[in-house]
Amino acid sequence: MKHPLARRVAAEFLGTGFLVAAVVGSGVMGERLSNGNVALALLCNSIATGAVLVALILTFGSVSGAHFNPVVTLSDAIEKGIHWNEVPAYIAAQVLGGICGTVAAHLMFGLPVVSISHHHRSGVAQVFSEFIATFGLLSVIWGCSRLQSTAMPFAVGAYITAAYWFTASTSFANPAATISRSLSDTFAGIRPQNVLPFILAQTLGGLAATFAFRSLVPDLSVQAKKVLLRHSVE
Amino acid sequence: MKHPLARRVAAEFLGTGFLVAAVVGSGVMGERLSNGNVALALLCNSIATGAVLVALILTFGSVSGAHFNPVVTLSDAIEKGIHWNEVPAYIAAQVLGGICGTVAAHLMFGLPVVSISHHHRSGVAQVFSEFIATFGLLSVIWGCSRLQSTAMPFAVGAYITAAYWFTASTSFANPAATISRSLSDTFAGIRPQNVLPFILAQTLGGLAATFAFRSLVPDLSVQAKKVLLRHSVE
Amino acid sequence: MKHPLARRVAAEFLGTGFLVAAVVGSGVMGERLSNGNVALALLCNSIATGAVLVALILTFGSVSGAHFNPVVTLSDAIEKGIHWNEVPAYIAAQVLGGICGTVAAHLMFGLPVVSISHHHRSGVAQVFSEFIATFGLLSVIWGCSRLQSTAMPFAVGAYITAAYWFTASTSFANPAATISRSLSDTFAGIRPQNVLPFILAQTLGGLAATFAFRSLVPDLSVQAKKVLLRHSVE
Amino acid sequence: MKHPLARRVAAEFLGTGFLVAAVVGSGVMGERLSNGNVALALLCNSIATGAVLVALILTFGSVSGAHFNPVVTLSDAIEKGIHWNEVPAYIAAQVLGGICGTVAAHLMFGLPVVSISHHHRSGVAQVFSEFIATFGLLSVIWGCSRLQSTAMPFAVGAYITAAYWFTASTSFANPAATISRSLSDTFAGIRPQNVLPFILAQTLGGLAATFAFRSLVPDLSVQAKKVLLRHSVE
Repeated sequence: MKHPLARRVAAEFLGTGFLVAAVVGSGVMGERLSNGNVALALLCNSIATGAVLVALILTFGSVSGAHFNPVVTLSDAIEKGIHWNEVPAYIAAQVLGGICGTVAAHLMFGLPVVSISHHHRSGVAQVFSEFIATFGLLSVIWGCSRLQSTAMPFAVGAYITAAYWFTASTSFANPAATISRSLSDTFAGIRPQNVLPFILAQTLGGLAATFAFRSLVPDLSVQAKKVLLRHSVE
Repeated sequence: MKHPLARRVAAEFLGTGFLVAAVVGSGVMGERLSNGNVALALLCNSIATGAVLVALILTFGSVSGAHFNPVVTLSDAIEKGIHWNEVPAYIAAQVLGGICGTVAAHLMFGLPVVSISHHHRSGVAQVFSEFIATFGLLSVIWGCSRLQSTAMPFAVGAYITAAYWFTASTSFANPAATISRSLSDTFAGIRPQNVLPFILAQTLGGLAATFAFRSLVPDLSVQAKKVLLRHSVE
Repeated sequence: MKHPLARRVAAEFLGTGFLVAAVVGSGVMGERLSNGNVALALLCNSIATGAVLVALILTFGSVSGAHFNPVVTLSDAIEKGIHWNEVPAYIAAQVLGGICGTVAAHLMFGLPVVSISHHHRSGVAQVFSEFIATFGLLSVIWGCSRLQSTAMPFAVGAYITAAYWFTASTSFANPAATISRSLSDTFAGIRPQNVLPFILAQTLGGLAATFAFRSLVPDLSVQAKKVLLRHSVE
Repeated sequence: MKHPLARRVAAEFLGTGFLVAAVVGSGVMGERLSNGNVALALLCNSIATGAVLVALILTFGSVSGAHFNPVVTLSDAIEKGIHWNEVPAYIAAQVLGGICGTVAAHLMFGLPVVSISHHHRSGVAQVFSEFIATFGLLSVIWGCSRLQSTAMPFAVGAYITAAYWFTASTSFANPAATISRSLSDTFAGIRPQNVLPFILAQTLGGLAATFAFRSLVPDLSVQAKKVLLRHSVE
């Protein structure tokens, strides 16, 4: 039995907020302390992001499914895990939560409430990276959803830590996080004009993985209502 | 069936002692070896702290609940997981254990038994960081307590590793650790005059998360006696 | 009940592709950002590889067994976990998937589609390292296969992260990955003329571990059909 | 039902061999690549050691209990988990396995088969560190043995990764490893004349934890035959 929508939306808001605060905040801390060694800053950033994902998915998974990501919500709706009329509320909560996460990180580090990023992230290689990154993320989610759902928080956290390193874009893989990070002129930022291509590539990558896994595991849609972490409540 | 109070208090003393010894000791080791690269020192410090938390919560969780933290004990009492008349013994054991942890770390590294910290940690950004850090910690604890309790040691360890990086204060999030760390003029120290604002912010953040999760998961208090790791004994 | 061969082969292709993309891509990223500090580049490379293995084995294990490695497939066939007539398809998918992984990593980082490696990896010490590395990998797999199969993704990921550091060759331990990495003139590459000795040592190490574990745990072959992750589907 | 002694001893030999090879080998690799940054070398060393422990305990735990450590074997005998007449075989296998691990690491890195260490590790602070390190290790083992035995591999791996950092001695905590490491004049070595005080402190620390946990959890000895990982076979 699912929780009422209001509670699930609140969980998405809080979870996405903490996720983006962790991405932005650990980027600021890593850059400040690493004396210009970008590999070290990114290592701290990637470990912090992967670790907080493990904690947040375990924390909010049984309430809302711990999507924290419009592409995950879209994919879940396609597989009938969430009703289409609940999708807008989920996505709005994720985007709003992410922006509040940026603001919280800025306040914790004594920065202006928001600041427009000047971090260039453009070009075919970057956009292709986002396609691959999100294809992989949704593959992990659907691959774990049937038989390994208790391990999913660890799978997703481990995947994202790795994907920071094996994609040229550091694997945003999340439209809500992409929008939120455009409001932070820090290590983890992205210029507003680079946001849309990222979101398109993320959406295409996520859809491609969703349909690929439907072929790979045909009984996936039969199990749709039980997929993702949410159903551990049922 | 709970263990007798004396045993639970001994577990809180030992666990908090090892936790603070790990925080202080790994700070000393990280600073000594990292040639002034603070990001590297903090990376070692944060990995050691998160890892020892995983081990200690698994070790002592089934005896005392592995609070190691007065805010966790307070929150557990509010949710009726522990009797109010047992709270003072828990908190005393945590503070005393933490101080002994500082002493043990100092002796292991050939330092004076105690030393008053001169590490400035003040200002609105630092105090707000502690509010957020402890709000997040208690969210993780209550979010995992119902359905993910076997994963809680990993969730808490991962959260704290991340929170070192995404908060400006490196996430003390624990009044007993804060007091103990004021007695160590090393990497992990905090000036005594900065302790009280930290503890207030931690307590407020913990209370806010406790009440937020009561709204988010209303059957939480019904399940109160089973929350936190302790009841895995029952 | 096993999935049809076509689906299992597709899973091996995708999984090995992502694995090699992660190895090659994180090597490029690590080297680019670490200002010539090879230990730091290798740390990022090893953490990314171990983490992606955890995610990929959890994702594809229930479909194909998540071999991603011809030596694992060979060993599984010896223990009757997979039919010998399915072995060529598995190995072809792994090699082809690995090559596509190299290509994908190159495209993500704006490099030529393929490039022949000039990275010297020769000599007795390197080859002996590959024997030990693969002996250890197959030991972990067979040691976990009977009673710890749910923990196998974590055991394999942890083992490989460690083996990057305790072998002089950084532990390729996988013929498909070795071939694929010869097509990348980057951090993770290997000269084509060094590939064959690596593959021979890997095969011998894997066979030695397979027969060692047959002595150590004699009921292993009785349990053959249930070994490796695949049978969690049965 | 336990495995025959010969098989259990073989598992202890192999497991301790891989453990020491990982400690020594990752120390060599870390020191070679880190340009004199000792914190970075130790970070790689500690992550590799913790990770290989997770893999090895999962691999050999169901055969021999995965002691890999004479103090663990001694403590298990005190708690009646292993017969006293089996203790000498266990300890001999651990010491011999550890020495072979040193040799294997040296051969993998093209070093002389053995070399006497000149690494000073003496003084009260170092010896006290070993007491604390081993007290903690045995606390983790006995604390997890009753109710968290499936998590023990992760608890021990996490504990040792942390203990590298919070003890001045980098936490040998194992007489077999201490002896083996005296034969390696590398990063992880220890001068032969410093071995005995380390072993005495380790033994005392382990005994203290064993008796402390007997008080803390009085039904521990009733459960003795089921303690440690071995009994997952029963």
